[in-house]
Amino acid sequence: METSELLYQQTGRNLVQLIENGTLLPGQRVPSVRRWSVQQGVSVGTVLQAYRALEDEGWIEARPQSGYYVRRLLPSHVDESPHATLPPEPGIAPCRNEAVPVSLHSITLQALAASNRADVIQLGTAVAGPDCLPTQKLNKILVQLIRRSPEAAGAYQFRPGNEALRVQIARRMIEAGCSLGPDDIVVTVGCQEALNLCLRAVASPGDTVAIESPTYYGSLQIIEALGLKALEIPTSPRDGVSLDSLQYALETQRISACLFSPNFSNPLGSCMSVENKKRLVEMLAEREIPLIEDDTYGELYFGDTRPPCAKSFDKKGLVLLCSSFSKTAAPGYRIGWVAAGRWSTDVEHLKMTNTLATASLPALAIAEFLSNGGYDHYLRRIRRAYSENVAWTVRTICQHFPSCSKVTRPSGGHVLWVELENTDALKLFHEALAEGISIAPGPMFSARGKYRNCIRLNCGFRPSDELEHALRRVGELAAQLVEE
Amino acid sequence: METSELLYQQTGRNLVQLIENGTLLPGQRVPSVRRWSVQQGVSVGTVLQAYRALEDEGWIEARPQSGYYVRRLLPSHVDESPHATLPPEPGIAPCRNEAVPVSLHSITLQALAASNRADVIQLGTAVAGPDCLPTQKLNKILVQLIRRSPEAAGAYQFRPGNEALRVQIARRMIEAGCSLGPDDIVVTVGCQEALNLCLRAVASPGDTVAIESPTYYGSLQIIEALGLKALEIPTSPRDGVSLDSLQYALETQRISACLFSPNFSNPLGSCMSVENKKRLVEMLAEREIPLIEDDTYGELYFGDTRPPCAKSFDKKGLVLLCSSFSKTAAPGYRIGWVAAGRWSTDVEHLKMTNTLATASLPALAIAEFLSNGGYDHYLRRIRRAYSENVAWTVRTICQHFPSCSKVTRPSGGHVLWVELENTDALKLFHEALAEGISIAPGPMFSARGKYRNCIRLNCGFRPSDELEHALRRVGELAAQLVEE
Repeated sequence: METSELLYQQTGRNLVQLIENGTLLPGQRVPSVRRWSVQQGVSVGTVLQAYRALEDEGWIEARPQSGYYVRRLLPSHVDESPHATLPPEPGIAPCRNEAVPVSLHSITLQALAASNRADVIQLGTAVAGPDCLPTQKLNKILVQLIRRSPEAAGAYQFRPGNEALRVQIARRMIEAGCSLGPDDIVVTVGCQEALNLCLRAVASPGDTVAIESPTYYGSLQIIEALGLKALEIPTSPRDGVSLDSLQYALETQRISACLFSPNFSNPLGSCMSVENKKRLVEMLAEREIPLIEDDTYGELYFGDTRPPCAKSFDKKGLVLLCSSFSKTAAPGYRIGWVAAGRWSTDVEHLKMTNTLATASLPALAIAEFLSNGGYDHYLRRIRRAYSENVAWTVRTICQHFPSCSKVTRPSGGHVLWVELENTDALKLFHEALAEGISIAPGPMFSARGKYRNCIRLNCGFRPSDELEHALRRVGELAAQLVEE
Repeated sequence: METSELLYQQTGRNLVQLIENGTLLPGQRVPSVRRWSVQQGVSVGTVLQAYRALEDEGWIEARPQSGYYVRRLLPSHVDESPHATLPPEPGIAPCRNEAVPVSLHSITLQALAASNRADVIQLGTAVAGPDCLPTQKLNKILVQLIRRSPEAAGAYQFRPGNEALRVQIARRMIEAGCSLGPDDIVVTVGCQEALNLCLRAVASPGDTVAIESPTYYGSLQIIEALGLKALEIPTSPRDGVSLDSLQYALETQRISACLFSPNFSNPLGSCMSVENKKRLVEMLAEREIPLIEDDTYGELYFGDTRPPCAKSFDKKGLVLLCSSFSKTAAPGYRIGWVAAGRWSTDVEHLKMTNTLATASLPALAIAEFLSNGGYDHYLRRIRRAYSENVAWTVRTICQHFPSCSKVTRPSGGHVLWVELENTDALKLFHEALAEGISIAPGPMFSARGKYRNCIRLNCGFRPSDELEHALRRVGELAAQLVEE
């Protein structure tokens, strides 16, 4: 009995090792029960027992008529498993209930400057590797467009922007639970312009905006540039912004708007539950407070279904939904969009005054990519690729980072948030950059310069020896910094 | 003697008629002296006498070894000539020395909405006709770029923007008297974003910005959106902003910045003299007041040389020079730029927070167009085309508009400003639009809604029967409105 237990445990552990070292990637089929029993020299029954245990622990999943596969989502509660070898998740960080003006950290500028350098391994910027972008497909579309409508590329497309694109966006958003018409949508220069216009529409200099903590540094920069104040709300790396904390903030502070990313926030990759999204929208509706929803990563889910947007629960037009194709198709096209609810007209006017129009050719190309179905096909591929990249990066961190490091378990997107122990992320940033590796240090993601022991890592590139080496070096440097 | 005088005058008048009705366009060769003497049945001496008189009056010019040509620039002082048949120029309009907040005129929005309609003849928007844009050339460059660097189109080009483009811009600006390096320049989403960023860098909500009167409505919209106040400075349709009036304003008002277009302002087409540009920069330097210089039309001069920018006289980094390729290459590319002097770093940061980056492919295409020489060749062609369009439009107005109408004599750009007598431009706008013709009514160009008897007409299209019909209808409608 004891021997049999050990046997199936050992059999399972051997498979987990293959997953952990990246031989078997998320989504891949694991060896059949029969084959593994032969390879391991154990009975079919022992392998079956081992696979079922691994299934319970979340490592693999059975697919009917097909066999066992490595799970796409990392085991959420792996720490509770006796086989746990992955680093634990970071917890929710407390925040002071006080709004502060934002001031551009020089570290943010340095980190961004590094992102322009071709000689640097980009673990610091949330960009996709060349093989994770539909470059060939889009280029083909561009050439076809130029041939078919030679004058369209050079002509203005005034607000609210290309109609075919707005139709396609409205259609896509049905899957996210949103009932939008093309006329509800304004095309923008990436999500960055969309967030800008929304904040300008709903808030005035000096006003307070509630944000997730940590949050996307680009949002912080907008808040600074517009002379607004940021109120950081504690945010769970798994479930998103804490509604209890938000409730308390709403009761004690004068908040002009919330700027949240309920689906796969950057940098945490957190995703609010459907119930929490609904409750969030209701809480804000009670007080007539606008919610600017950044859904940039919403379509990059690892699970089976597209998580709904908070906008889908919006009955009063208080949710201003922003997104872009920068993370899902082509960053350099600079095509984003906004459905600004009751601020639609204001945002449309602001768009006109801000940049007059969005570049025509990229918008036409995205519209075509969406309508001819290439986009969906590509998204299916890229979701798998990112989930594999994220899983591989977590395992690589597990191998090479100090053992006390904590790592998020995002269920979408392509960034990871790592909490180090007794390590100054700013020092780590400089030392890594000196070796040609960029990382994003935690203070970039906080209005108060918090998270000095955290870093964000990009998982937009496919696993490679170069990448593993870079991650190992970051881990080694982090270990050295702990010792100092 | 009297007969001979009459003869040469008649001979000359017959030629002027051919110019006025568009048979002979600016830049075209007029019939040789010998041929005209045969056609007119007069002596060679009489034709020579006639041609010399027309030359004195500014209708034609002699080119050595080549013959006589229709002048590109409209006769400036034609009203002083006994043969004057062109409408007079509008004068300088007085302005109240008081800053006001701007509020978006619904008429501006209606006019802009009309500019999106394919079924409307676009006399109201400052756009170029398809045969005045280098569409084929740019499309060829786009396809080559996509083939040569397939990944570049989709990749981010972070601030300050594409380097090859910034190098090319810096080189071009030597001709405008400016010593800029590529690092002085930030690529923007059209000139609109450039003006936005500059105003945000130098002024805060409530501050006063001095502007030309009339001025580009896009600037007014930015001033409104940023919560600034506008102070209109009287501006000569020929020579630009009145420096005496500006001096008085500087002495009596607190002005945070000037936003002027010294080269071919929109809508007047005025061009400041070199001396006045120099004096303007010195006046502002004395008070350390920044000048935002909009040079959008600077390369579209009709004369022989590129007028210098005010920036060329800037010794203190107080001039923020903005321009774009929207009027000279491709409006839909949305490629502009700014050299912001001592505010360079601020503007670069604001660019990042505003739109993160500019679309890559259009920037790459413009850089290539500039560097391979195609741009200069095309500019030479387009300058001639626009000067011909403008001259043709002035003559058409002369034929079909009420005789008391006044018209500007721009020496660059492709817009005309028409002052009507006792005619409500807003009514005219609505009546023309009902007939499928858009015009830009004067109040769009004033913070105070002035110029109700003025309209701006686009000359970006080549002369055509359709265009002549549209202009005639606008003239007839204007005449009817006078009678009412």
